Amino acid sequence: MAYTNNNYLNVNESYLFSTIAKKVSAFTAAHPDKKVIRMGIGDVTLPLSDAVCKAMHKAVDEMNVKETFRGYGPEQGYDFLREAISKYYMTNSSVVIDPSEVFVSDGAKSDLGNITDIFSNDNTILIPDPVYPVYVDSNVMLGRKIVYVDASEENDFLPMPPKDVKADIIYLCSPNNPTGAVYTKSHLKAWVEYALSNDAIILFDAAYEHFIGDKDLPRSIYEIDGAKKCAIEFCSFSKTAGFTGTRCGYTIVPEVLKRKTKDGREMSLRSMWTRRQTTKFNGVPYIIQRGAEAVFSEKGQAQIDAAINYYKENARIIADTLSKKNVYFIGGINSPYIWMKCPGCASSWDFFDMLLEKIYVVGTPGVGFGKNGEGFFRLTAFSTKENTTEAMERLSSIL
Amino acid sequence: MAYTNNNYLNVNESYLFSTIAKKVSAFTAAHPDKKVIRMGIGDVTLPLSDAVCKAMHKAVDEMNVKETFRGYGPEQGYDFLREAISKYYMTNSSVVIDPSEVFVSDGAKSDLGNITDIFSNDNTILIPDPVYPVYVDSNVMLGRKIVYVDASEENDFLPMPPKDVKADIIYLCSPNNPTGAVYTKSHLKAWVEYALSNDAIILFDAAYEHFIGDKDLPRSIYEIDGAKKCAIEFCSFSKTAGFTGTRCGYTIVPEVLKRKTKDGREMSLRSMWTRRQTTKFNGVPYIIQRGAEAVFSEKGQAQIDAAINYYKENARIIADTLSKKNVYFIGGINSPYIWMKCPGCASSWDFFDMLLEKIYVVGTPGVGFGKNGEGFFRLTAFSTKENTTEAMERLSSIL
Repeated sequence: MAYTNNNYLNVNESYLFSTIAKKVSAFTAAHPDKKVIRMGIGDVTLPLSDAVCKAMHKAVDEMNVKETFRGYGPEQGYDFLREAISKYYMTNSSVVIDPSEVFVSDGAKSDLGNITDIFSNDNTILIPDPVYPVYVDSNVMLGRKIVYVDASEENDFLPMPPKDVKADIIYLCSPNNPTGAVYTKSHLKAWVEYALSNDAIILFDAAYEHFIGDKDLPRSIYEIDGAKKCAIEFCSFSKTAGFTGTRCGYTIVPEVLKRKTKDGREMSLRSMWTRRQTTKFNGVPYIIQRGAEAVFSEKGQAQIDAAINYYKENARIIADTLSKKNVYFIGGINSPYIWMKCPGCASSWDFFDMLLEKIYVVGTPGVGFGKNGEGFFRLTAFSTKENTTEAMERLSSIL
Repeated sequence: MAYTNNNYLNVNESYLFSTIAKKVSAFTAAHPDKKVIRMGIGDVTLPLSDAVCKAMHKAVDEMNVKETFRGYGPEQGYDFLREAISKYYMTNSSVVIDPSEVFVSDGAKSDLGNITDIFSNDNTILIPDPVYPVYVDSNVMLGRKIVYVDASEENDFLPMPPKDVKADIIYLCSPNNPTGAVYTKSHLKAWVEYALSNDAIILFDAAYEHFIGDKDLPRSIYEIDGAKKCAIEFCSFSKTAGFTGTRCGYTIVPEVLKRKTKDGREMSLRSMWTRRQTTKFNGVPYIIQRGAEAVFSEKGQAQIDAAINYYKENARIIADTLSKKNVYFIGGINSPYIWMKCPGCASSWDFFDMLLEKIYVVGTPGVGFGKNGEGFFRLTAFSTKENTTEAMERLSSIL
């Protein structure tokens, strides 16, 4: 008798974005004449850069010819890309990451989900609320104990280490999805100290690091002393270089990062993750890795910076609108997300329905990211400038 | 205190192919003048077909333009590819598979490893010996109980259901890696009956199905009545279309396939796998999916058939050599693998070392696939015709 994993019964069935998609479909079916503007799901709208596409065309040509064809590649990624990422760390955040500590993957979502494999089910998991749902769901699927730390208006949606909880695995995301809040170095220093004192591990989601413009804010947790002894960092080309449909990311597992099994055997987490990936993964397509490499070329960096500035201008347009109307919000400066308080104390879903019905603008109800998201709403800067401007004009007219 | 997964201590550290790679490196360093011919790892040598490359170039161009750019796609794959795979099932094996039962992935290895997520750790796993190491390692990592069923000369390396064991999850691979043996319909009928009578699940690895030329041999387990109620099938473009470095595969989870949790709640495995993939995976790159779609076009099928015939001619050259020398072997007809007995009762590794040192030919020691592989050796047909011919001339000279 094959039994299924009973923990799946505890995973929240109704996925946030599918509920939104259904509501939007129903609305457009009923009102085909209305122009709906989508500022909900965090998907990009600008195309891949010329540098990336040129590199991928070249790689496709190589794959078409026997002499340059590539079969199985290294599961951890080709050296050319691991080295480019290592160099990027040095220029972007003055952090020394050896190429052997870089694991190329098909995206931060996969790695954030799969990293659970190398830890025991007995760990206590600490997750901020509100949060990106993958952290929660991937642990619920394993039946792990989850405790939450509250993010709220009181702490500017930047929760600090709890004094009364000894957590073993800690998820942090900065710049944050969904709130757009960004930890300072002193914030992260407190988290690193907490992790080191508890022999805990921080899983640090840095998918939005390239949106940080402020020179004083940390782009990598490894800017904090001691972080290599307690943190794994997850990065993505999705928002940085428009790879949401092209699929590439990378994860840093420092060589010095070690933890014990329950019976006291010390294990290298880099060796464990290597073993996990060589067993259950076969690497990212060669063509895609060449595209990702081009992101780090001089032209590539100029092209993605232009795209990010475009999105940040959208964020500014949204932020200005909310400021003028005296609506509380955070994010939108070093982040593509704006986290606003629903005016008139509306619930998240009531505000969602109202925006869709009155001004045909789609956002994401904050409560979909956790109980502390109730009464808040996420808008993204990933739309076009024209649509962002139009959506904010419509919003101004009803606030 | 973050504890690591202690089951990783039980995973065999020395990976078969890395040991081979080290031995070959040492040999070529010591003998730079010798031309080593590799017939070990199952990697292809022919380039991607023109049809596939043309489709990928077009997709890269689409991604470079705002109007046709694609962001996040469906985690289960685009409809165009799921529909093409559904049609392929109908023409290839007269099996009706609905597109909603098709899950596009980055390869059979990933899905075979990750499918463990949806089952309970309490299941007893049945695995043939010798076997593709991923089945074993991915279950050892979860601490699951594994029992083996012997494949040997006595049963033509086609083990049948054990009478004295009630297994819950059964791994089968046909055409087999590493042996090249192929189950008939009556063989598979016995396995399906065994699975149905035990409420077990068969995980059927059909990665090599396109090498089957014999019209009477099953290309899909779903050719057997009742299989949709007990089997998940894993397929790959790797060997069929040369996608080892391009990464695309697909997995079939039938709508009617259901099993219970330990407390008796019936679960749809298709829903569970959907949930697993939407949480921990974000789909295959759009560019790669367009390439995979082109495999099923008229030109694409003609081009991959030409490549497969090329490899099968290599297999014939190997088989003819072994037949002339009266060496026992199986496979090589409906499979790219030849599984030969080491002459003179040599051990697998002794034969490996002898071939490398005397005739500079690299194969895979059978014992690397399990204890029943001792005394056997795997050769692959994926080399070039010139190298295969030369390797067999060298082999003839010493047998």
